[in-house]
Amino acid sequence: MSPYLRLADLEPGEIDRLLALAAEVEANPVSRALAGKVFGLLMLNPSLRTAASFQAGMAQLGGSTVVVQPGAGSWALEFGDGVRMDGATQEHVRDAVPVLSSYVDGLGVRAFAAGASLEADLQDPVIQAMARLCPKPFVSLESAADHPCQALADWRTLDDHEVPKNGGRFVLCWGWHPRPLPYAVPIAAATMAAKRGMEVTVCAPEGFDLPEGALERVRAAGAEPRVFRDPVEACQGAHALYMKAWASPSAYGDPAGHTERVKGLEGWCAEPGWLAGAAPGAVFMHCLPVRRNAEVADTLIDGSASVTLRQAENRLHVQKALLLALLGGRG
Amino acid sequence: MSPYLRLADLEPGEIDRLLALAAEVEANPVSRALAGKVFGLLMLNPSLRTAASFQAGMAQLGGSTVVVQPGAGSWALEFGDGVRMDGATQEHVRDAVPVLSSYVDGLGVRAFAAGASLEADLQDPVIQAMARLCPKPFVSLESAADHPCQALADWRTLDDHEVPKNGGRFVLCWGWHPRPLPYAVPIAAATMAAKRGMEVTVCAPEGFDLPEGALERVRAAGAEPRVFRDPVEACQGAHALYMKAWASPSAYGDPAGHTERVKGLEGWCAEPGWLAGAAPGAVFMHCLPVRRNAEVADTLIDGSASVTLRQAENRLHVQKALLLALLGGRG
Amino acid sequence: MSPYLRLADLEPGEIDRLLALAAEVEANPVSRALAGKVFGLLMLNPSLRTAASFQAGMAQLGGSTVVVQPGAGSWALEFGDGVRMDGATQEHVRDAVPVLSSYVDGLGVRAFAAGASLEADLQDPVIQAMARLCPKPFVSLESAADHPCQALADWRTLDDHEVPKNGGRFVLCWGWHPRPLPYAVPIAAATMAAKRGMEVTVCAPEGFDLPEGALERVRAAGAEPRVFRDPVEACQGAHALYMKAWASPSAYGDPAGHTERVKGLEGWCAEPGWLAGAAPGAVFMHCLPVRRNAEVADTLIDGSASVTLRQAENRLHVQKALLLALLGGRG
Repeated sequence: MSPYLRLADLEPGEIDRLLALAAEVEANPVSRALAGKVFGLLMLNPSLRTAASFQAGMAQLGGSTVVVQPGAGSWALEFGDGVRMDGATQEHVRDAVPVLSSYVDGLGVRAFAAGASLEADLQDPVIQAMARLCPKPFVSLESAADHPCQALADWRTLDDHEVPKNGGRFVLCWGWHPRPLPYAVPIAAATMAAKRGMEVTVCAPEGFDLPEGALERVRAAGAEPRVFRDPVEACQGAHALYMKAWASPSAYGDPAGHTERVKGLEGWCAEPGWLAGAAPGAVFMHCLPVRRNAEVADTLIDGSASVTLRQAENRLHVQKALLLALLGGRG
Repeated sequence: MSPYLRLADLEPGEIDRLLALAAEVEANPVSRALAGKVFGLLMLNPSLRTAASFQAGMAQLGGSTVVVQPGAGSWALEFGDGVRMDGATQEHVRDAVPVLSSYVDGLGVRAFAAGASLEADLQDPVIQAMARLCPKPFVSLESAADHPCQALADWRTLDDHEVPKNGGRFVLCWGWHPRPLPYAVPIAAATMAAKRGMEVTVCAPEGFDLPEGALERVRAAGAEPRVFRDPVEACQGAHALYMKAWASPSAYGDPAGHTERVKGLEGWCAEPGWLAGAAPGAVFMHCLPVRRNAEVADTLIDGSASVTLRQAENRLHVQKALLLALLGGRG
Repeated sequence: MSPYLRLADLEPGEIDRLLALAAEVEANPVSRALAGKVFGLLMLNPSLRTAASFQAGMAQLGGSTVVVQPGAGSWALEFGDGVRMDGATQEHVRDAVPVLSSYVDGLGVRAFAAGASLEADLQDPVIQAMARLCPKPFVSLESAADHPCQALADWRTLDDHEVPKNGGRFVLCWGWHPRPLPYAVPIAAATMAAKRGMEVTVCAPEGFDLPEGALERVRAAGAEPRVFRDPVEACQGAHALYMKAWASPSAYGDPAGHTERVKGLEGWCAEPGWLAGAAPGAVFMHCLPVRRNAEVADTLIDGSASVTLRQAENRLHVQKALLLALLGGRG
């Protein structure tokens, strides 16, 4: 299997096989399938679900994990090619990734968007460079412009709740957040839904439309995203409402500009009424962490439509499937 | 077994069974009893003994651990119900605890006192809320107002040194410390001694008496605490001297006020002479970490009466017993 | 086996046995030889290779590791004997090391130079005190004045590339670096080469000669170091060029003084031309992390002479050998 950087790059048959494996490991969670195997987690950013579920998953499969946190216990990493390292960074990824790779059987890397250039981040250069430096199986644990493990867990969650594939309506909606978050999850969620055969709607206030580079990714995955400005309207007939905060393209990587732009948008906090016209059994989704009562009201996330905990639990099952495929010859 | 939040809530028979299990695992430390099991450690505060002994213990029983540190590698947690999360906290415990629980077979949480309200902290609302959020076996790794794993280790240490139960005399004594520490360990130690059938004495300078809410806990566990102001007097006939620093109730959570109040109290540093009138074979105890030569002189902690290292080692054995009870069907 | 603090203290037969074991575990990396065993890693300083390779190595041998980071998840440690602990340090090594030792089967400690006194650091008092406090097998993971795991990996790397022992020429050369690094690796590398029977050359700009205490260590290991000021000259006939940054003895532990002293020395950045007169097949070495294009040019470290990734990978193999010797009765 190639490096796992984007769900949208998988063949439909590969996705089916991973989901079948996920069902298998959920039914029989403990085995010795990866006994003696070690998976490395190179975490350049914080994590709860990702680090915990990969560690628990490897352990349940009889294997082990090694967590490396540059700048907190490990050296601060340099990414620039050819730079003279006379400043704060202490080790180049050109050394760190091959070295780590020589200790482990596979490597996962979390590297959020740098936030300096929207155009550059949408190309996802860092995770691609790191994947090229790694001769072992490689998994993106969220990059500047994708979050493929989340996408696979979300696909499975939609299946779990029998959300229709073809003809299913998926609404990705912006939520209020104090910080200008990158586009990794919006892209991952919308391309997943498109790849799954669903119609994709994106709902956001003026100024917060997804950048063109993100929309192109959705189109390439098979859907022409429709744009709405009103959440209740956007959710008419919807089978899934996926809330997520992201930056305005005009204030990308700019916290002060973001603070200005989100003033007056406090109403973009999802609540149960948004699903008034949705299809029967419509589900509410969020990748977590969520800013409660800012992005989403307690009444929605704690209500009966919410499948956020199932999304999170599915991280464990689909990632164990991925590990079996990558390290256990179950590809 | 219910969530393990307080030793004093256990039935005597449960304590006996845990101590018998602890003896068993000390004699035969390595097994596969918890093979495939994963225990989560959610550490909101620093730890040496707790994190290391739970990790080592799970490994010796064939299982694994996942350590999550909010604010250092994981998201900063919010505890307030219903708050609008527009500030620094990034994930609510109402999401974090159920999510983590779905990855592991049991969860331990360390959440020290918030220090904002003495009354609130003595009710231990945070650890109780987290236990309610967790559908899996749950262990307090020290909360605002208790430290039940330490208490169990201390009980075993008293047994190891044949300190009498009924009629045994237990002295909890205040020591000088630069910071206003909470009442978790004083409460845990004194209620443990009371539950074990011992007479309980509390010795502290004026202004540093334990708050009424702490004393009530000791009474509920079966002892009427006697109060002394002079350590040598307090230790007349004592079988155990347990040193610990804590805040003045009048400067709880107030470092500057504490600094004022501990001026002139530098003599409250335990030394061998304090045990001059103690019972033969009396033991000196401390839960560690200890401020050497501030709380306790080297000569006492490194002397023959000291059982502090045995207390620390017993953490490993009693926690393995607890893990076998909670995760291994040995309850 | 005694605490492993310096390669130079091993008998030649011990080194041979460890290298034979390393070959064995490289050929058959996965086993259950250390099943149920736990190795503690007490990391007082950052690490990539050390922490990751010990964790991966223990896992591949069927055992486990516990990582403790004082000041980041664990208590800040005090080293001074007899001090009154009324300040920022929270736990004394006299407590922390015996306690940790009671949870694990062996302990590794990383404790870099304090940088306050050159003379004191060269005596390596901290690691020696910690080794004395530990009743279990003990490994230095780099101390003020040695890095014995690196030295063993470097020895094996020289063997791998058939670098001659007796008559082999080993050049240790200073490189430009923004910070005044200690002498641990220079001492470890030069004493390793001397112990291996090689001629040792040290090349550095004026003011950056190794301190006398370091040179004595090299002499005690069997070589009289020759001193050069010109890297190309120093490398005439060399079989190995080992680059490393270190402090000027006159600015030891003094970042501002170091910044002054390295001005104008930017040319001390190793590049392929330095090996123009070297022996055929000469290897380029560095322990990593390296400041690329400051200490060493990309063209050299990424070129065919470079064996830096093999050095790093050998950390895994030699440390697994060491763990088998210390914890597995394979001494």
